[in-house]
Amino acid sequence: MKKPVFYHAGCSVCVSAEHDIINLIGAENVEIVHLGNDRSQIAIAENAGVKSVPALVTPNGNVLHINFGASMEDVKK
Amino acid sequence: MKKPVFYHAGCSVCVSAEHDIINLIGAENVEIVHLGNDRSQIAIAENAGVKSVPALVTPNGNVLHINFGASMEDVKK
Repeated sequence: MKKPVFYHAGCSVCVSAEHDIINLIGAENVEIVHLGNDRSQIAIAENAGVKSVPALVTPNGNVLHINFGASMEDVKK
Repeated sequence: MKKPVFYHAGCSVCVSAEHDIINLIGAENVEIVHLGNDRSQIAIAENAGVKSVPALVTPNGNVLHINFGASMEDVKK
């Protein structure tokens, strides 16, 4: 099965949510993408519907925006 | 271990997120509370830090606000 993808950008809200998601789902069951470190993924995340980080894209393509760390516009700066 | 609690109020955003969370975590691993049906839980959710629904309160007490369905003020109406 395709894994959910957790997008974040290293902000404190992101890191806290990342820990929570890993605790809930298990580190082996989620792919973590750091958009600050891997900027080529920004367009992919936007195409998936990610408006802000942290966000979790489920295997069926739904986007769960979790709390609010930063907008994608901020991530691009 | 204490289970995470998913609070919702029956709105379409809530129901969609509920399905996603159950798919990700497993129905047996999360307690679902419908604040519209069980209004005595509204104060408990607010005390836990829930500002809007849908929201997931993790076993360690963090609140993950997922997307945005309705504010707690709307839930009380």
